[in-house]
Amino acid sequence: MTDLPAGDAHLLLDVFLMFAAAKVLAELFVRLKQPAVVGELLAGILIGPSVLGWVAPSSASALLSEIGVVMLMFSVGLETKPSSILSVGPTAFVVAVLGVVAPFVGGWWLLRAIGEPQAESLFVGTAMVATSVGITARVLTELKVLSTRSARVVLGAAVIDDVLGLLVLAGVSGTARGDAGWHELAWTAALAIGFVVVVAALGPWLVARTRGQVQKLRADNATFVFAMLLCLGLALAAESIGVAAIIGAFLAGMALATVSENDEVVHLQTRGVAELLVPFFLVAIGLQLKLDVFAHAETVYLALGLTALAIVAKLIGCGLGAIRLGGADALRVGVGMVPRGEVGIIVAQIGLSAGIVSESLFGAVLVMVVATTLIAPPVLRPLYPHPHVNA
Amino acid sequence: MTDLPAGDAHLLLDVFLMFAAAKVLAELFVRLKQPAVVGELLAGILIGPSVLGWVAPSSASALLSEIGVVMLMFSVGLETKPSSILSVGPTAFVVAVLGVVAPFVGGWWLLRAIGEPQAESLFVGTAMVATSVGITARVLTELKVLSTRSARVVLGAAVIDDVLGLLVLAGVSGTARGDAGWHELAWTAALAIGFVVVVAALGPWLVARTRGQVQKLRADNATFVFAMLLCLGLALAAESIGVAAIIGAFLAGMALATVSENDEVVHLQTRGVAELLVPFFLVAIGLQLKLDVFAHAETVYLALGLTALAIVAKLIGCGLGAIRLGGADALRVGVGMVPRGEVGIIVAQIGLSAGIVSESLFGAVLVMVVATTLIAPPVLRPLYPHPHVNA
Repeated sequence: MTDLPAGDAHLLLDVFLMFAAAKVLAELFVRLKQPAVVGELLAGILIGPSVLGWVAPSSASALLSEIGVVMLMFSVGLETKPSSILSVGPTAFVVAVLGVVAPFVGGWWLLRAIGEPQAESLFVGTAMVATSVGITARVLTELKVLSTRSARVVLGAAVIDDVLGLLVLAGVSGTARGDAGWHELAWTAALAIGFVVVVAALGPWLVARTRGQVQKLRADNATFVFAMLLCLGLALAAESIGVAAIIGAFLAGMALATVSENDEVVHLQTRGVAELLVPFFLVAIGLQLKLDVFAHAETVYLALGLTALAIVAKLIGCGLGAIRLGGADALRVGVGMVPRGEVGIIVAQIGLSAGIVSESLFGAVLVMVVATTLIAPPVLRPLYPHPHVNA
Repeated sequence: MTDLPAGDAHLLLDVFLMFAAAKVLAELFVRLKQPAVVGELLAGILIGPSVLGWVAPSSASALLSEIGVVMLMFSVGLETKPSSILSVGPTAFVVAVLGVVAPFVGGWWLLRAIGEPQAESLFVGTAMVATSVGITARVLTELKVLSTRSARVVLGAAVIDDVLGLLVLAGVSGTARGDAGWHELAWTAALAIGFVVVVAALGPWLVARTRGQVQKLRADNATFVFAMLLCLGLALAAESIGVAAIIGAFLAGMALATVSENDEVVHLQTRGVAELLVPFFLVAIGLQLKLDVFAHAETVYLALGLTALAIVAKLIGCGLGAIRLGGADALRVGVGMVPRGEVGIIVAQIGLSAGIVSESLFGAVLVMVVATTLIAPPVLRPLYPHPHVNA
């Protein structure tokens, strides 16, 4: 079994450093009465290229990060009954729509105001749109408030937000190509909406019907294996039609939520998987940050402007969308929708490689993404009465 | 959160295909009263380049495979008390030594007999040495016989086998470079033996002493997180001094075995992680097989000869080493040590890239590795009275 100190050792070193740094800073932040998630994000910045340079973003960190966030949203889905989301459906819809329109228009307007061209402004507007629900879901899990009304609105809005974000990107990409592509856009919309509706509606029913078959399986841990297959399968299905993988994973968890309620073993095994893999998702966000964008005063202003706008637009857009729940819940929803994630980075990257978005603007988007993920958790935390008690 | 159907979708597709194929064939094999592990190995061959060509070995499959086997050996360690290995120590030592000498001499002799040069013969002998204990450990876990005497001898021998294999490789590499390098060899030996002895002896004691501190940690699931840190940390430490990562992981599990005995949560969370990740280790072995080596009759004979020799040498070497336990246990130990793994492939690969080992010989080594992992489990299974009862 001798292994050679070849490339593999480096791989395992990265894995260990990412996990260890995340967990040491998580513990530190919990002791400082701050969200563990912020410690894990900062761990990524700390060991990443900007500060210590111990770990660089790689295909390994990307893979573990992807599986990590899939497992995170699956475990959140497992705690979420479909009926609890449906009951806040209309509010979640308004939150999602306003939460997409406000940052898109705001981002586009800011860029136009400082004299940037139309195509670049549209791309940056698009990069401002997508909420990274993973960060908020992690905080809500930590506070044990996943079943509160505001948490359910955030989860429902995140699903709709994702479908809307997909449509905005398809539209903007079409416009940039000089081909609005209405047919394609309509097809993308139909597929995405159809997937979410069909899986959300039929998933729990199908799971309940196949439950007897699964229990008849002879291999070890068949229930857990079935849960993982459903999670990975729906994540893949979602991604292959353009919806985020985590939406598929969340819907898979939700489909199992009703039947697995009493299955403590599946919950514990899923928690083990999530506990091991989620830190890679958080650290990988921190790894993305490049502090060298701060070398130019102009980029600093741009980054600060984008970040401020990203926060204000979601806060006002989503807060207004949830205003009929009262001020306290509206604020929770608004703050909960603030974090942006890898999708903003991916959109900006498409713009960068198409020559539409400049290097400095790309750097500013990176800062905006990391800053919004860092700012939301500590603000969100005190908005809930206190940990371990449902509001 | 919109994700793009870019490279990521392909990554998730590979992950899903590997996991799904493994689990479908595992279920099938259990129904055929065969070991699940054989189904998972065959799944890799089936979806790999040789048959369907759905998944090719990649850095992603390598990473998941590495973490998978680390988690496998960690979970096996968790079921193994240090005292239970120590009590079979002398037998395990003799098994390991004879189990290294017999295949090395046999492989070298076979190659010399068919007229191959000295350096190539030494390399192939080395590639025949290392037992892949992961396969056997998985079968023993499935049969729930990890605590039997023969299982403990196999586990103990695998640790010693790994250290000896490292020394053989260091010696052969030195000879191939025309520099025997006795100093380096002695240093490698001292480091490897020192690591194993110190960790095996002090690990449980240190874990028991720090237990109080770990329980005082405030972050969620601190005990499980500590277990994962110890596992990844010792795996990395082992690998960085040239011992296999899985030996570090096994020792980490064993260090925790005494204190975690009553900690059902940590066991279940670890089982969840292992259940998700171990299939990637098994499938990745199958993916390595390239059936195109069978295009030449000469390579076929070579592959068959190497495979037969690999089986007979371990069976006789390790069986003789354990003969004082009686015929039944000696046979179990002999069969349990037959599987070879990625180390044989790595050794052959070093020889290939140094121009010492030929392409067809490399192909034959690949066949030998996959064939030994496929043959051992179904032979091992009926050697234990019947599942779910300790022999």
